Amino acid sequence: MSRPADAQAPAAFQDRYPEKFSHCYGCGRSNPHGHHLKSFWDGEETVARFTVRPEFSGGVPGHAYGGMVASLLDCHGTASAAAFAYRAVGREMGDGGEFMRFVTASLKVEYLRPTPVGVELEIRGRLESIDGRKVQVSLSLLAGGKPCARGEMLAVQFRE
Amino acid sequence: MSRPADAQAPAAFQDRYPEKFSHCYGCGRSNPHGHHLKSFWDGEETVARFTVRPEFSGGVPGHAYGGMVASLLDCHGTASAAAFAYRAVGREMGDGGEFMRFVTASLKVEYLRPTPVGVELEIRGRLESIDGRKVQVSLSLLAGGKPCARGEMLAVQFRE
Repeated sequence: MSRPADAQAPAAFQDRYPEKFSHCYGCGRSNPHGHHLKSFWDGEETVARFTVRPEFSGGVPGHAYGGMVASLLDCHGTASAAAFAYRAVGREMGDGGEFMRFVTASLKVEYLRPTPVGVELEIRGRLESIDGRKVQVSLSLLAGGKPCARGEMLAVQFRE
Repeated sequence: MSRPADAQAPAAFQDRYPEKFSHCYGCGRSNPHGHHLKSFWDGEETVARFTVRPEFSGGVPGHAYGGMVASLLDCHGTASAAAFAYRAVGREMGDGGEFMRFVTASLKVEYLRPTPVGVELEIRGRLESIDGRKVQVSLSLLAGGKPCARGEMLAVQFRE
């Protein structure tokens, strides 16, 4: 069941994961040490907003380290892959049915310019294709509207 | 000048960076919060060893989050690219001459199996090619000898 956008704010994708999958350092609500990245719908795309703290700098203070950039794209990418897969079958994540969990098979990150710390970043996801259990997602990370990194993810639905 | 392996242990690549480039959360000696990854020569290849702490888990406790895996490959990759570039011109990093700093242009990570926490991981780098300022490095991350992830990095020498 969909909810009007002006009603109560919808839960982030990551906040709809079952408890057993909610421990990710990058985006899990149950990890007290982690970054708690949160991803949402934005029309046909997905979006997350995040400000990197100064201690997560690269070699030179003021810019995020490469692993941080990859982490933001990775966590937003797998959450987006799941969201796209749910939408494709007319379901909503957290609807109480069987949980569809996606893991990264591959992630390519292109570093376009340094990613600043202390500035709200926008991480966006776009569905490229769904083929069975495989979801291809294009990702971008922007600061002040300028692209700092681009990502291409292949995510795969995990079956235990 | 090379030093016999059985003499004083050589400094890690990252410990030979100038102070201004030593603040990386992943591998900088001057970042008190970070992981302090350290990379060394191992014959023609490079190697780093690292044990992921449990708080850096993925969705399910016991396995590292995807960004951690990418971070280890990224930091080891750029340090290795620099080391390969120094060796190619007959120099040694930290020799007092002009510092050659490499940054990631692109990194592709393939996740082959979950990477365990609490186990010493081995991250290896192999030189694929050097073309002017561009260095291509193949990377692998192993746990107990089994490959958990593979990486392909294009690193570029940074000129200020």
